[in-house]
Order: sequence, then C-alpha cells, then structure tokens
Amino acid sequence: MNFCSHCGSQEIRFEIPADDTFMRHICSNCGTIHYQNPKMVVGCLPLYKGKVLMARRAIEPRLGLWNLPAGFMENGEKAEEGAIREVWEETEAKVKIDRLHALYSLPQFNQVYLHFIGELESDQFAKRTSESLEVKLFDFDEIPWDEIAFESSTFALKKYLKNPDSEKVHIGYFHYKHLGIKE
Amino acid sequence: MNFCSHCGSQEIRFEIPADDTFMRHICSNCGTIHYQNPKMVVGCLPLYKGKVLMARRAIEPRLGLWNLPAGFMENGEKAEEGAIREVWEETEAKVKIDRLHALYSLPQFNQVYLHFIGELESDQFAKRTSESLEVKLFDFDEIPWDEIAFESSTFALKKYLKNPDSEKVHIGYFHYKHLGIKE
Ligand SMILES: [Zn+2]
Ligand SMILES: [Zn+2]
Repeated sequence: MNFCSHCGSQEIRFEIPADDTFMRHICSNCGTIHYQNPKMVVGCLPLYKGKVLMARRAIEPRLGLWNLPAGFMENGEKAEEGAIREVWEETEAKVKIDRLHALYSLPQFNQVYLHFIGELESDQFAKRTSESLEVKLFDFDEIPWDEIAFESSTFALKKYLKNPDSEKVHIGYFHYKHLGIKE
Repeated sequence: MNFCSHCGSQEIRFEIPADDTFMRHICSNCGTIHYQNPKMVVGCLPLYKGKVLMARRAIEPRLGLWNLPAGFMENGEKAEEGAIREVWEETEAKVKIDRLHALYSLPQFNQVYLHFIGELESDQFAKRTSESLEVKLFDFDEIPWDEIAFESSTFALKKYLKNPDSEKVHIGYFHYKHLGIKE
C-alpha cells in the first residue's frame, strides 16, 4: 500500500492503532485505517457414482497440475454458492452441495479454504474450459497424487478417502514441511 | 475507492476485466485490479458444563446486546486460532476448540461467519472487558433470545440446541426477513 485509497495521501504509517492489537496501515492525512484480512477460497469435492471430478489448471500458479475446483469467494454470494460457481467455471458441471467437508488455513498466505462435498447432477461436463486444460472423473485409486496443484486439495481428498461417511469437518493447515521444505 | 493504492491515480474505473466475470475497480494509470472479497468472521460457542459463555457488546454496532464471541479473522492466523483469540479478547476465557459448528453467510454484507464449538478450560473469565460490558455463562433455557446482537449467533445457538451432538456443520445465511424487514 503506497497511497491512501480514500484521500490519495502517501503518508501511510504502519502501526497498532489505539484500542487494537494488530499492526495496520493508517493514513496520517485522513485517519483511515486500512484493514487487511484473509481471503476465502471456496471449493468442492464433486462426486459422481463414487468418482471425483478434478481439473488440470490452465492458469498460474501451478499451471498443468490437477486440482479440486476452487477459487476466491466473491462479494455478494454465499460460501456454498461460490463453490457451485467455481465448479461450473472450471468444469461446466452442475453440482449439488451436500455438506461442508474441510476447513484448511494457510496463515502464511492469508487464505482459508472451505471445501464442500457435492454430487454432480449428471456426468455432463466440459472436457476443457478457459480455466482448465483438462477435466476428468477419477476413480479414487487413480488420483494423480504427485501432480496435485495445492495441498488443500490433497488434504480434502485424503480425509475423504480415509472416512467417506464422516460428517465432521476436517480442520487442517498448511506448513512448508508438507512440501518437504524446511522453514 | 477514490485513489489507486498502488500509484495514487484517481483514474479508477469500475468494470469487468478481460477473462473475468465480475465487476472490479481497475486503475487506468497503472493497470492494477483492486479485488475486493468477503471477510471472514470467526467465533465460538464456548461451553462449560452444559452452559454457554456469551458477552454483551461494549462497542457498536449492536452495543449492549448479547453475542457469541466472534470477530474478523486476522492475517497470519488459522481460522480456529482466530476463534480462540476472539473468545480471549471478549471474555478472557481460554477455550479448546472441538469442532466447526456453523457456516453462516451474509451476502448483503460480504461476510462469512465460522462458528466453532469449544469447551472452556475452566470457569475463569472476566466479568467485563474492553470489548464486553458483561460476560456470563448462560443455561440454555435462560438465553436472552430477544437481546442477541446478530442473527449469526441466534443461528449457531438454535442449531446447537436442536441437536447438540450433530457433527455436521450447519449451513445458513442472513435474509432481511430474519429481522422482520421486507427487502
Ligand atoms: Zn487518507
Ligand atoms: Zn494505479
């Protein structure tokens, strides 16, 4: 943040406001406190007759790798609507949400994933879309574990595989060790 | 948004970028797209020996009304850590998170609530804090339903009361009719 989006001043300081405990960007000219908060990513584990629909990313980051449909939640929508929209955008499949399945935080990246479980209305989906190089229904024993784009998808898939009928939401979080990297 | 926070230009247009489907604030000078996304509110239904800890708000909005401890999630934390922090800030109680309980969207306000269920480590809490005029453990048959600050708390409490042992997350959303207001 270089300029205040409210008044245009460059006099932005970074400090803890009175009655607060977190560092904030504060405009010294107009006094606006510019709060920054985590972004939500909403996604789905879309099932169809025991298979799961995945998409190979046509966009960076992690271009070319497989992922569960997911993306940033938008203003004006409900979380579950966002997940349905993301499935449509990435695969052109229509999904009916059954339940929330996983909550996965990435505190290093200020993101939180919500993965729902849903059932496809039919086996109709696009073979590719502007967001996906390839869309495919996988049997659970043929999931390409070594070519998955994000740990959040691996987490959601593995938890499902371990206990497909569990209704309790699985809570997890990203750590660099998941990538074999020492912090 | 009056000024671009990146370059300070006032030439901000509001339109759908190429390869996008949503309206965004775009800087015509430097090209930055200023995405705006929903904020997450993390909270808790803190239980202690069958009672629930609630706090009477010392700050606007809804000053003076009772609420489950909850607040905006901060950058750098996990969702469940945010809920623990909010319980501490509003009540000075230490809570251990058991599970996620409710997901409640407010699409009109670009907010999503995540309410966890947790158990207090002890009956130690502050009678009041800088954020709460009063903190109290309520029996479920003495909850002040007519003096609850936010519908998200009412939703989480009623769902719990109806089925305390359900592990499936309750998914709900705000509508003005919940306040008796026609849209
Ligand atoms: Zn300013
Ligand atoms: Zn700019």
